[in-house]
Amino acid sequence: MLETNGERLWDSLMAMAEIGATANGGSSRLALSKEDAAGRALFVEWAVAEGLTVVRDTIGNLFARRAGCEDRAPVVLGSHLDTQPKGGRFDGVLGVLAALEAVRTLNEKRIETRAPLEIANWTNEEGARFTPAMLGSSVFAGAMTLTEGLARVDADGTSVADSLAATAQAGDMRLGRDMDAYFELHIEQGPVLEDNANTIGVVTGGQAIRWLDIRVTGKAGHAGTTPMPVRRDGMFAAAELMRVVEQRAGETSGLLATIGEIHVDHGSRNTIAGDLRLTLDLRHPQDDVVDAAIDELRGLFNDICERRGLAYDMSVHWRSPALPFDADCVAQVRDAAAALDCDWQDMISGAGHDAFHLARHCPTAMIFIPCADGLSHHEAESIEPEHAKIGADVLLNAALARAGRA
Amino acid sequence: MLETNGERLWDSLMAMAEIGATANGGSSRLALSKEDAAGRALFVEWAVAEGLTVVRDTIGNLFARRAGCEDRAPVVLGSHLDTQPKGGRFDGVLGVLAALEAVRTLNEKRIETRAPLEIANWTNEEGARFTPAMLGSSVFAGAMTLTEGLARVDADGTSVADSLAATAQAGDMRLGRDMDAYFELHIEQGPVLEDNANTIGVVTGGQAIRWLDIRVTGKAGHAGTTPMPVRRDGMFAAAELMRVVEQRAGETSGLLATIGEIHVDHGSRNTIAGDLRLTLDLRHPQDDVVDAAIDELRGLFNDICERRGLAYDMSVHWRSPALPFDADCVAQVRDAAAALDCDWQDMISGAGHDAFHLARHCPTAMIFIPCADGLSHHEAESIEPEHAKIGADVLLNAALARAGRA
Ligand SMILES: [Zn+2]
Ligand SMILES: [Zn+2]
Repeated sequence: MLETNGERLWDSLMAMAEIGATANGGSSRLALSKEDAAGRALFVEWAVAEGLTVVRDTIGNLFARRAGCEDRAPVVLGSHLDTQPKGGRFDGVLGVLAALEAVRTLNEKRIETRAPLEIANWTNEEGARFTPAMLGSSVFAGAMTLTEGLARVDADGTSVADSLAATAQAGDMRLGRDMDAYFELHIEQGPVLEDNANTIGVVTGGQAIRWLDIRVTGKAGHAGTTPMPVRRDGMFAAAELMRVVEQRAGETSGLLATIGEIHVDHGSRNTIAGDLRLTLDLRHPQDDVVDAAIDELRGLFNDICERRGLAYDMSVHWRSPALPFDADCVAQVRDAAAALDCDWQDMISGAGHDAFHLARHCPTAMIFIPCADGLSHHEAESIEPEHAKIGADVLLNAALARAGRA
Repeated sequence: MLETNGERLWDSLMAMAEIGATANGGSSRLALSKEDAAGRALFVEWAVAEGLTVVRDTIGNLFARRAGCEDRAPVVLGSHLDTQPKGGRFDGVLGVLAALEAVRTLNEKRIETRAPLEIANWTNEEGARFTPAMLGSSVFAGAMTLTEGLARVDADGTSVADSLAATAQAGDMRLGRDMDAYFELHIEQGPVLEDNANTIGVVTGGQAIRWLDIRVTGKAGHAGTTPMPVRRDGMFAAAELMRVVEQRAGETSGLLATIGEIHVDHGSRNTIAGDLRLTLDLRHPQDDVVDAAIDELRGLFNDICERRGLAYDMSVHWRSPALPFDADCVAQVRDAAAALDCDWQDMISGAGHDAFHLARHCPTAMIFIPCADGLSHHEAESIEPEHAKIGADVLLNAALARAGRA
């Protein structure tokens, strides 16, 4: 198996981190800002030095192409260089620079591939400046129209179109052109690999996500004059609903349940909570498992609210189906990890990535490496140089297997 | 037993309700506003017509005195004429006008009392314009200094002192002068009498109140990437704490527990709740019962949070001790209710009243009548004319028993 140069990769990561460097060791390169443009320019400089051809599409996605000996759809390796306002040095950046390191290694070893290789840097992945997140890959893959993407504005009212013009990042490469495959290396942004002492996560897909809105309608009343037996307390009802959600999640391995927001309408400390809203985020690798849990929760909620004389309503705010990655691409990643003799495991991606938009466009897979304490979107985001190197090795070998050695 | 004139009482209530009448059948007479001054003027007109002597003290409390044949401390009957911004027609007003009706009845029947009788209208009971509530009785009874009371300002920055001057409500009657006893008739502001189909509540005192602040410190995290077993979810911990509070309240008759506010710091629907604050309002007629419940809850909270790997903190924000009314005054109310052959019961006051400040100053008791659905501080506040009349009957006979028939 081929191996990348871990030191060279790390040096590039540290050099990129200098652009928009923050006081506490992170990076700040909001999408299509001056800093993002500078980061892109550094990447282009490196790419050109490796003899790559740089092009941009109409939403500003940046591609650096290494020709193959066959003129066909490229195998694409990438991620994003933009960051959160106070982001880390690795989220996204690792995937782009590891792809660069893969190309550098191929150049160094004078290895040609049959399919062309491309490094992709997707526009506005973070969603910190423009919503939604993954805007560039979304427009590329057709989930959002170009018109809509260009019209999105930041908090100051500046549009994507104007920002592309200001930073000279818009090109004329066609959106949605054919790709043979897409591979993305990314930090896990969760604790699973670290807890299992594994170095590589072979990502088999994204989980099914449901965002639900729950409204509990009880009866407000005076905290000092309403006897407990006649109360229809929305808060205590909500507490029981929450307990049931947690218990239900505990019964099914891999089912994730999060109640992140709760709001009492006209809440005050000496008023019995009448109307109350809460959110529920449910996730699992399989759609049917999430949907069955929702059905079951509805039944349990009914029982609780009927017994308490309250009403409730639960509606689906957003439904994102489970998205399995391409079996061949996943196998190429798994084979590379196995051949490299590192500690690896199959896993699901809990967070969103450009790869999910690409997966609807071409065969796709992802590779995770651990990040300390699962922390990301934070200046203290941290990874091991050795893990970055092994991640790049897996990326290189999987891509090479896909593109074919000439 | 003497009986009051129910129709005359009702007519007075309806006439007073015209002053500051709201579109939906309520009244709006914020303390020391133009409307409150007009309400006071109408009351003074009625009092003078009955031959009463009207005086005001330095915080604007208004007293209308009917001389007794002995020159000694008066038996005082009263409540408040001020209302919430969109208040009802009976909260407070009933107590003042039923006292007036009691005097009218005595005049009509030419009955003299040994002790003088006084009707009191306390300044700013509602606390809707100036905080705290019960400001006038608080200053009268010495719980707050006059200087402090006069300096309180409303939302526009207007002080009590300036409002007293603007409405000519400040007098020179001495604060804290001797009173033989204080009786207050008030609507219940709760559902107990209605649920028990009783007309009269013989109020034996006020309950012990504790306002607690609870802070739960878990760990925020990504809803999609953090496996359930490694989470330290503040929301699910809070749900378990809340269940325990409700269960504990259910074990002790008369213990009231209300969690009216909950707030997740930096809450978002796809972030595990890390830090979370909630309030707890605990009440019971006996201090030791509330305090024992708090101790027990601390133990239970400890166990829950230790098991979950979270921290919590619970601090007492406000502590109001239980306040039993004077046994003789309560007996006089109870005897009057029993002799009038109405349906009555002993009960505790859940809400705050001027009577609690007076109870620290002189022998005191209260009388409750039902209000529809326990509703108050609302334009739809509603009572039965017959209940108002019986309430006034009890007030009159209890006061007469106290003052002594000449
Ligand atoms: Zn990322
Ligand atoms: Zn009142």
